[in-house]
Amino acid sequence: MSRAEPLRITLIGAGTIGLSWAALHLQHASATHPLELTIHDTRPDLQHYVYDTLPLYLQDTSPAEIRPLPGEVSKTSSCGREAINRLIKDGTLKLEPNLSTAVPHANIIQEQGPENLDFKTSLWPQIEQHCPRTCLLWTSTSGIPASVQSSQMQDPSRLLVVHPYNPPHVMPLLEIVPSPITRPDVVTRTVDFWKQLGREPVVIKKEVPGFVANRLAFALLREAIHLVHTGVASASDIDTIVQNSMGPRWAVAGPFKSYHAGGGEGGLEGFFKNIGGTVQDCWDDSGKINVEDGWEEDVFKQTREAYGVVDTKERDMLTRRVLDAVRGDAEGAG
Amino acid sequence: MSRAEPLRITLIGAGTIGLSWAALHLQHASATHPLELTIHDTRPDLQHYVYDTLPLYLQDTSPAEIRPLPGEVSKTSSCGREAINRLIKDGTLKLEPNLSTAVPHANIIQEQGPENLDFKTSLWPQIEQHCPRTCLLWTSTSGIPASVQSSQMQDPSRLLVVHPYNPPHVMPLLEIVPSPITRPDVVTRTVDFWKQLGREPVVIKKEVPGFVANRLAFALLREAIHLVHTGVASASDIDTIVQNSMGPRWAVAGPFKSYHAGGGEGGLEGFFKNIGGTVQDCWDDSGKINVEDGWEEDVFKQTREAYGVVDTKERDMLTRRVLDAVRGDAEGAG
Repeated sequence: MSRAEPLRITLIGAGTIGLSWAALHLQHASATHPLELTIHDTRPDLQHYVYDTLPLYLQDTSPAEIRPLPGEVSKTSSCGREAINRLIKDGTLKLEPNLSTAVPHANIIQEQGPENLDFKTSLWPQIEQHCPRTCLLWTSTSGIPASVQSSQMQDPSRLLVVHPYNPPHVMPLLEIVPSPITRPDVVTRTVDFWKQLGREPVVIKKEVPGFVANRLAFALLREAIHLVHTGVASASDIDTIVQNSMGPRWAVAGPFKSYHAGGGEGGLEGFFKNIGGTVQDCWDDSGKINVEDGWEEDVFKQTREAYGVVDTKERDMLTRRVLDAVRGDAEGAG
Repeated sequence: MSRAEPLRITLIGAGTIGLSWAALHLQHASATHPLELTIHDTRPDLQHYVYDTLPLYLQDTSPAEIRPLPGEVSKTSSCGREAINRLIKDGTLKLEPNLSTAVPHANIIQEQGPENLDFKTSLWPQIEQHCPRTCLLWTSTSGIPASVQSSQMQDPSRLLVVHPYNPPHVMPLLEIVPSPITRPDVVTRTVDFWKQLGREPVVIKKEVPGFVANRLAFALLREAIHLVHTGVASASDIDTIVQNSMGPRWAVAGPFKSYHAGGGEGGLEGFFKNIGGTVQDCWDDSGKINVEDGWEEDVFKQTREAYGVVDTKERDMLTRRVLDAVRGDAEGAG
């Protein structure tokens, strides 16, 4: 039986984000939706690294035909490597150290190399030279906007940011950040792709530093650091507070919806009418702490002592259960 | 058979917070942990109001012997009223319009009257006059600290803030905010009480405006309003972003634990080493918007148009499922 035409995705950069993207794409591959996933990286140990590390990401995120068997997933497991062998043998996965060979057949190229302006601006013209004209070009950058990265491109209207929330094989959010000259059809095709995968793409309307998700999270983090630094609460107390209040609430209803509900029949307007004074008091009293302002030593120490090394495997498993609970996916939530 | 000695709790104020506290306490009542819950409010329609409204809070939060039967819960349901009748008949619930009669036998008095300084400062000396010496005195205030509320009390060392995250019958967090002179044994007894109920009391070390949870949430809200006001994202886009990124993540691991994990082996320090520059860029560019700064009309409109009237029943059901998912409570999560 002849195979359906595969979707061809090339990942540039095989760090933790790259392998997480790989796991995400592989979990959506199937006989009816075949995938040819090429991972490009110039690291000399690419093959060893992917064989050792990718199975850890594939565990319990992938369909049975791709997933390593239970017990296959320790770093040195020969069975974990066997799962990668199977993917390579059937043409689903390819490891490619040469850029010019990695991109010529791609439908989508997704870049997550170093967060370095020179690297990115010199990379895109090389990619452009070798990739198909219709290929989608996405950068996973958290800080260098498409308008800056594309400065040396022949056609800078092709590039946009697809910024994940880590790790992308778990978290549904994708911030789609076009530059002012990114072509609308590129944005549309990108959004459609992610929607078809059941993810949550959100188009950001302006290129602002940090995009949106990190700006929101860092605003809360700044106040959290201020409260620890001024002795109001410990770092782990702050985490306990968030985990038992706005965390679960915002998993279900974001801040505007939450405070709109909080205002009863008056909505968000009623909320501000009722407690706008308290809100302003909090804003007036909030800390304007900066990086390297002298808070670091104590805050780092408190966090290290509270958590040691975090078990991200358990965190990701619980996060998936939370997402399933919100979606009403009883099987996943149980 | 003689009944075990009941726990006697008096709630001062029967607004939405008061009835939510009532539901919380009633859901922990049982034959082995009997409760005498007195609800005091001077509103002339107290009886009608409680009969009509409390069943809505009791639905699916209470043990079977207290919960209204399925279908009993519409506002006018005679069966919902029947559930309240049963609670009153067996002595579990008492409605009391007179303060001097409501407090003399209480083990715990919990106040959630108007957020009004004069009301609260004049209330506590009246309560003190009639309540037992060992009774715990808690205010649910979100903004008036115990040191201010207690100014007219004979013994101001008795009072502390027990600030819930709304609604308290759903959300586990309780911010315990003693004044500088609140007695340590009062704090300990308060924390022990909530821990025994499986909730999450966190003692806040200083009386700061807004305490901790609201300060954190309002810091994020401020940046969210700024981003809507400057056209970077719509109100509902912001909610989609939060619901699919930091919401579910922070339900599992608060900001310090999350970024500590994000720094890999370097922990939070490694995180700031890697992307401290981006964090500072976000902080430098963040909005310093204030209440009544001209953003209101558009932000209120966007929120109203996105959500109309929020179904808090569904929100609370989903929030409970999220909390159960994090706790690994398969029954609740399924």
